[in-house]
Amino acid sequence: MSQTAYHDELLAMGVAARTAARRLAVLPGDARNRCLEAMAARLVAAADAILAANAADLAAATRQGLSQAMLDRLALTPARVAEMAKGLRTLTGLPDPVGRKDATWLRPNGLRIEKVRVPIGVIAIIYEARPNVTADAAGLCLKAGNVAFLRGGSEAMNSNRAIVEALKAGLRDAAVTDEAVQWVPWTDRAVFDTLLTMDRYIDLVIPRGGEGLIRRVVETSTIPVIKHYKGVCHVYVHAAADPDMALAIIENAKCQRPATCNACEKVLIDAAIAESFAPRLAERLRACHVELRGDEAFRRLVPDARPATEEDWYAEYLDLILAVRIVPGIEAAIEHIAAYGSNHSDAIVTDDREAGQRFVEAVDSAAVYINASTRFTDGAQFGMGAEMGISTDRIHARGPMGIEELTSYKYVVYGSGQVRT
Amino acid sequence: MSQTAYHDELLAMGVAARTAARRLAVLPGDARNRCLEAMAARLVAAADAILAANAADLAAATRQGLSQAMLDRLALTPARVAEMAKGLRTLTGLPDPVGRKDATWLRPNGLRIEKVRVPIGVIAIIYEARPNVTADAAGLCLKAGNVAFLRGGSEAMNSNRAIVEALKAGLRDAAVTDEAVQWVPWTDRAVFDTLLTMDRYIDLVIPRGGEGLIRRVVETSTIPVIKHYKGVCHVYVHAAADPDMALAIIENAKCQRPATCNACEKVLIDAAIAESFAPRLAERLRACHVELRGDEAFRRLVPDARPATEEDWYAEYLDLILAVRIVPGIEAAIEHIAAYGSNHSDAIVTDDREAGQRFVEAVDSAAVYINASTRFTDGAQFGMGAEMGISTDRIHARGPMGIEELTSYKYVVYGSGQVRT
Repeated sequence: MSQTAYHDELLAMGVAARTAARRLAVLPGDARNRCLEAMAARLVAAADAILAANAADLAAATRQGLSQAMLDRLALTPARVAEMAKGLRTLTGLPDPVGRKDATWLRPNGLRIEKVRVPIGVIAIIYEARPNVTADAAGLCLKAGNVAFLRGGSEAMNSNRAIVEALKAGLRDAAVTDEAVQWVPWTDRAVFDTLLTMDRYIDLVIPRGGEGLIRRVVETSTIPVIKHYKGVCHVYVHAAADPDMALAIIENAKCQRPATCNACEKVLIDAAIAESFAPRLAERLRACHVELRGDEAFRRLVPDARPATEEDWYAEYLDLILAVRIVPGIEAAIEHIAAYGSNHSDAIVTDDREAGQRFVEAVDSAAVYINASTRFTDGAQFGMGAEMGISTDRIHARGPMGIEELTSYKYVVYGSGQVRT
Repeated sequence: MSQTAYHDELLAMGVAARTAARRLAVLPGDARNRCLEAMAARLVAAADAILAANAADLAAATRQGLSQAMLDRLALTPARVAEMAKGLRTLTGLPDPVGRKDATWLRPNGLRIEKVRVPIGVIAIIYEARPNVTADAAGLCLKAGNVAFLRGGSEAMNSNRAIVEALKAGLRDAAVTDEAVQWVPWTDRAVFDTLLTMDRYIDLVIPRGGEGLIRRVVETSTIPVIKHYKGVCHVYVHAAADPDMALAIIENAKCQRPATCNACEKVLIDAAIAESFAPRLAERLRACHVELRGDEAFRRLVPDARPATEEDWYAEYLDLILAVRIVPGIEAAIEHIAAYGSNHSDAIVTDDREAGQRFVEAVDSAAVYINASTRFTDGAQFGMGAEMGISTDRIHARGPMGIEELTSYKYVVYGSGQVRT
């Protein structure tokens, strides 16, 4: 296919998406829920076809020598297909933000102003190997009345095509335009140059993947991007911490699922309690097979820890590695987090209410914790039901990005002939 | 000055801004209000110096042959300086969104989650000739706890420098770091390449100016941009409209201040009432010196109207020109607005409640009106007190962008040792 034809086809998809978005915007919540049900039913019905397509993707990926981790992400099983369907059905039970009146007020001239939640419109999701993102992202977008404009990774091409076919069949079953899900079958870079400048048709881009992908999207896009960058999360053990609680929180935040963005990567220990706490921490984490790196003060107390380099303080390991620093007090802890953190999730462990309050006010992260694990930064854990991801942006959505964050608003103004004087 | 030195100086300003933002984030609202008071006092005290600097700018602009409209925007008077000071003082009386708890909820595991408003951080404002934007934007940013990173037009260089000096003196009077206002004294394009990729230091860019400026910013920036594009606002006169009300609304929306983005640029007349309404509209607007352009159907009823071209339907005239189309009904009006509008402000005039509701639901604009002038799309008119502008974006802020829209949020999570299972 020539690049020109392909450019035009993308634009045509944009036009179709924009038209579909106008229809979705006035579709009642129960009709959107019926779509989600129908999409789930079609996914279940198409399970064999989806698994066969996935087997073809896996065979190609194996031939190309992709890593085991990549193959794991790519692989679907009957249980994973059932989970995708269940995810769509779960969305139907969640509250519908669209049409909700966030505020209503009366102006002295008699104008009544309502601030009403509306869908964002067309949302492009750019992701990598996991085919389940295709169903999850399409479902979240649809729940909030948005058209999903999906661009998955080349490894998952066959799986994604099969999943999208099922989703579109579900939309048709529910008598809703199947243009409400758009899927880009081209995976080379030229797609980005067109797709990410289609600001007439696409309202928001959400890249899901490594830092390199996100940065490339940010540099190319003329469409607003909500970024999901890394999490370099800290647990600060304050002088007034309960040491047992601190150990339990650190173990959980580091080890429960180390490859996630809300896992703890650094521990800061207050110098006042370091002598007793540091060896206990080392013992606890060694039992979990965590590799320890530390500053000089920590290594005096835990001599077999490797020396931490400057780079360690910035690193998102996503692995069973932890860097530990001993700090002279809470202000130094706050400074360290400001200098090296990623504004994602950071925790203090303390029984001192004032210290806790100082920490959560001064630490500029999407989620700040007193006496709890950073692993709770998650849509389901926050009670949002489902999430598109964890935004590291400060604009529009910050932290767990649920259905409500996939909406915008409009002002509806009721008058009786008012004019401006 | 070499480009390298200049690049480094911009980065150093970014570092200073980021540091100042951390201090502002924990500064109580009354301290921020004292800053605004002190800045206002310094503006008043520096009025002569500011006017002298402005006279130098005006002389240079006159020598360069700038248009009268541009000179008008550039010119300061004692009254305009007093207005800038008054604007800052008005902000002190407005509610403080920072620290407000938007929501608090308890999770089944005992975690208490608070969603708390926080400043965005560092906001770059890129603007053109008007020097009063310097004080207005700095004040709005500071009220919401943000550092203003100001880059004004080259024509206003001397005026802006004098205003910034007064603002900084005010900050020092209030014992707050004067790095809370950053002013970029370089106005060539190379500034953009550095400034707009300083995403480590700047959280948001708001360009204020023509479409060309905004588009250049969007194409260069790796920082989120909130756009204030054009307003192609419609008034649709429904079959069930009160014709006198429709005439009053259209006259107001078109003529009260035609150069604003919320002025009416197009009128759509329902065919059912066109025969009686079109001649009355023409008569009313001719008295206000409005040039009429129309489609064929309108010109059959108002023969001296000029024929409207396809371009007319897209045009933002910002002048006493109006294009009129006769449409077969409400759905055609909605389609026309979707095809040619700018999603800014659109109104229906009707006594039919159902038609009004259909219009405000289907028309996808920041502000949709039933029986009122589009001119009300304005922060002060909406009761927000002050505004940074009217966003045409759908992300973060839509429509009038007040103090609250200059904030973000964080989640504060209170635990008692909870870990994730």
